[in-house]
Amino acid sequence: MVVVAKLKAKAESQAAVESILKGLVAEVSQEEGTLVYTLHRSQTDPSVFLFYEQYKDMDALVAHSSTDHFKKAFAGLKDLLAEKPVIEMYDELDAI
Amino acid sequence: MVVVAKLKAKAESQAAVESILKGLVAEVSQEEGTLVYTLHRSQTDPSVFLFYEQYKDMDALVAHSSTDHFKKAFAGLKDLLAEKPVIEMYDELDAI
Repeated sequence: MVVVAKLKAKAESQAAVESILKGLVAEVSQEEGTLVYTLHRSQTDPSVFLFYEQYKDMDALVAHSSTDHFKKAFAGLKDLLAEKPVIEMYDELDAI
Repeated sequence: MVVVAKLKAKAESQAAVESILKGLVAEVSQEEGTLVYTLHRSQTDPSVFLFYEQYKDMDALVAHSSTDHFKKAFAGLKDLLAEKPVIEMYDELDAI
């Protein structure tokens, strides 16, 4: 299963948000059921970050969301984001 | 570079859109500079499809967008989509 998460930083907090998100990627690499976890920054709006995530199954996603590093990162982001993150769940249909 | 493209099918055209997009994935697999081209369907709104795409460089993206199969697919989609596709360009910052 796939999650696409979009986060918009406050204009003055872009560097801080980027740092927290990069730190999160490093921690997530230890997670057994998280298959893909890629951080991006928008080319048109540098305050917009996007995660493209793939999990082995729903249990792996729940495990990811329950980790201390995930909770710590999102606690740290709370006052740095311009709006609530947009989290969308997808099923993969096909790929090259 | 990364492209995230979101397409919303008309309610009555979901199957036709899915078929065109799956056909496109099969053709894109022949493209040399297209590294990732993954089709998804939203878990919350089955009329919403999302492509996650990675290209070797801008030239590879331009080549992809200029192919007959890409043009043919998007011509075929024209009357089947509920709204204009949302195409967003990203740079990858980090990944596991």
